[in-house]
Amino acid sequence: MAIKAEIIAIGSELLTPSNIDTNSLWLTEQLNRIGIEVQIKTIVGDDEALIEQSIRKALERSQVIISTGGLGPTEDDLTRMVFAKVLGRPLILDTQILEHIRAKFEARGLSMPENNQRQALIIKDAKILANSKGTAPGMYITEAEKRIIILPGPPREMKPMFEQEVLPLLKDLSQGMCVKRRVLKVTGLTESGLDESIAPIYSKYTNPSTTILFTNRELQIHLTAKAANESEADELLDELSKKLEARLGLYVFSSQGETLEEVTGKLLKLKNLTLATAESCTGGLLAERITSVAGSSAYFLQGVVSYSNHSKLTLLGVPLELIESLGAASAEVAEAMATGIRRLANSDIGISITGIAGPESDPSGKPIGLVYIGLATASEVSHKELRLQGEREQIRWHSSTAALDWLRRKLC
Amino acid sequence: MAIKAEIIAIGSELLTPSNIDTNSLWLTEQLNRIGIEVQIKTIVGDDEALIEQSIRKALERSQVIISTGGLGPTEDDLTRMVFAKVLGRPLILDTQILEHIRAKFEARGLSMPENNQRQALIIKDAKILANSKGTAPGMYITEAEKRIIILPGPPREMKPMFEQEVLPLLKDLSQGMCVKRRVLKVTGLTESGLDESIAPIYSKYTNPSTTILFTNRELQIHLTAKAANESEADELLDELSKKLEARLGLYVFSSQGETLEEVTGKLLKLKNLTLATAESCTGGLLAERITSVAGSSAYFLQGVVSYSNHSKLTLLGVPLELIESLGAASAEVAEAMATGIRRLANSDIGISITGIAGPESDPSGKPIGLVYIGLATASEVSHKELRLQGEREQIRWHSSTAALDWLRRKLC
Repeated sequence: MAIKAEIIAIGSELLTPSNIDTNSLWLTEQLNRIGIEVQIKTIVGDDEALIEQSIRKALERSQVIISTGGLGPTEDDLTRMVFAKVLGRPLILDTQILEHIRAKFEARGLSMPENNQRQALIIKDAKILANSKGTAPGMYITEAEKRIIILPGPPREMKPMFEQEVLPLLKDLSQGMCVKRRVLKVTGLTESGLDESIAPIYSKYTNPSTTILFTNRELQIHLTAKAANESEADELLDELSKKLEARLGLYVFSSQGETLEEVTGKLLKLKNLTLATAESCTGGLLAERITSVAGSSAYFLQGVVSYSNHSKLTLLGVPLELIESLGAASAEVAEAMATGIRRLANSDIGISITGIAGPESDPSGKPIGLVYIGLATASEVSHKELRLQGEREQIRWHSSTAALDWLRRKLC
Repeated sequence: MAIKAEIIAIGSELLTPSNIDTNSLWLTEQLNRIGIEVQIKTIVGDDEALIEQSIRKALERSQVIISTGGLGPTEDDLTRMVFAKVLGRPLILDTQILEHIRAKFEARGLSMPENNQRQALIIKDAKILANSKGTAPGMYITEAEKRIIILPGPPREMKPMFEQEVLPLLKDLSQGMCVKRRVLKVTGLTESGLDESIAPIYSKYTNPSTTILFTNRELQIHLTAKAANESEADELLDELSKKLEARLGLYVFSSQGETLEEVTGKLLKLKNLTLATAESCTGGLLAERITSVAGSSAYFLQGVVSYSNHSKLTLLGVPLELIESLGAASAEVAEAMATGIRRLANSDIGISITGIAGPESDPSGKPIGLVYIGLATASEVSHKELRLQGEREQIRWHSSTAALDWLRRKLC
């Protein structure tokens, strides 16, 4: 039997219509990897009685109890106080942590508000979990065979704390059971098109199991294998994943967690090529995505966001008659923009996006979602036409994805 | 006191790393509108003992209990069976519903699998909630002043059922009670600094209640008012929100849900001013955020992402000696970039960002997180120095936020 864990997400904001606990998804994945199952999750507001009930119930039925949130400096951050109460242990002010928090504020030229003192209160005999990204430390407590893990709510603080501080302390629970996941990331297919294409392959396997997930970034194929150890799980994953990758070819852009931006950047670096971008309807999103990758200055030289026609004309040298006769959202203008930015930046490759992201439609009657991508190299210039659906934000996102993906395929 | 509701989401798929209960967000919004508050949410797998515990606990503490999921035709769909057990009522086969389900299959040219018979089992004395989109009916049960609402999991079945069948049955609970929320968005303060500044004001109020939330975009103050009707709730919100806004002054950029990008754009439009951006370390993020607003072409003319020094020199006219003597991440270069992009785009305002986003530090020894913002108008050029902490992505985000916020304050 797998070890059973339980997650308690604490914070009144998680009970509003606009906020959801996403921490538990990431934690579940981490726990599953070492063979620990999440059997129940509770989401509770900053309410002392309900937090107390939830913790008591969790201690009755689960071996690993993880809480997130409620470690902030304000009065409604109750987590450490309620855990202390349920466990019957005092809270002790840790002067070393207090100095550490004070120093963090001072490094930013600020004096520590008195409220933050609360974050240096530690439950007696808890192991302190260092917070490399924020002020509130976490806590790890063992109590009658149970492991209690108290984590901060912000994902950027919670995740590194769990990886660096908590995982090593849970490893002994895994009992040689290992659940491993692999994610194949896909572009250029619809969800049902993808499923139709690969169902004949994956439906023959129960281990790994296969789930297709449509995130707001891309399509993902999640493979989950259970085995006695990591290398056996890897073997199971390798077998199915190889078959799926063979079937899907270039539609799969990543099987090791990389983003499309990273994969494309690696290819540029590998081929020692430089890139520049000219964007209209995406307003800088393509450049932003490319430069989100650390080290992108090795291949990314320059971007231009030519929102006005004037800037297309002067900076990129797009002929006025093209814009006047065909409109800014046209194949010819896309190609001229790609050629123009390549020349301006003196780069190996120029890539451009121009189109109609909405919500207002084009006076010329061109539909919202009509987008052109231009790609210029030393030897050729070409374009792609997209007809996208959705809101402004989605059209911008999918346009930039299509541009990145075209570039990736060119470089493969 | 507002009526307290509790949501139990049932289904093992909701305990995997890739699935999350989103039904509860929609349900929370519906409930809040009629003055019912969600005080706790539980997400439980297809596990009889845990479902039973969750239902028992819910009946102890909440007046309205809503479950979603677990009404399917398979053996692991336990919801109706466990509710019947906890309530001590038998399950009765409803032949009319059975015929209805059978007819739905036949309409698709299929014969009903025997499993589906289970979906016609109804808890004694439950009101049947028709499912216009699927086979499993819902149930509405009153038991000792409690309302129990059992809904199917698929959103497309759950939502119309709740709207059409459940809402009319809950209206009497609202007691003319209305819960309204207002969100004040804040920049330029830390979470604890904000709390210290406004706690003396909000702590005098229990209605509206106040929560401070740090999202990945900004600091938010959530005010929640309960009143007999909307206009009374608005009055309560107005009173506290005016006091908080007076205390915080320009730190509050929005009280009606607008983003910082929208507020800044509105001010530009109002003053009939045009804008152009020159970015280095933010790589297009500032332009992307500005142009994410529909209609931004009215004031945004052009953006340049000058990632290489070469592009700063040629396009923006930043003097070579400045870059060589002071480095690209310097106040002087920021000002020269702002002046340069203003001239290049022929805009009223030029704004620039240059700095060190990491993860590699600058060869000159300047620290990661050192960022300069430049702002040029017809009459003046000035800069701001930021010393930011965190990862590359956060430094980029906070830099672009600081630039937008500076611009907003200039325009106020």
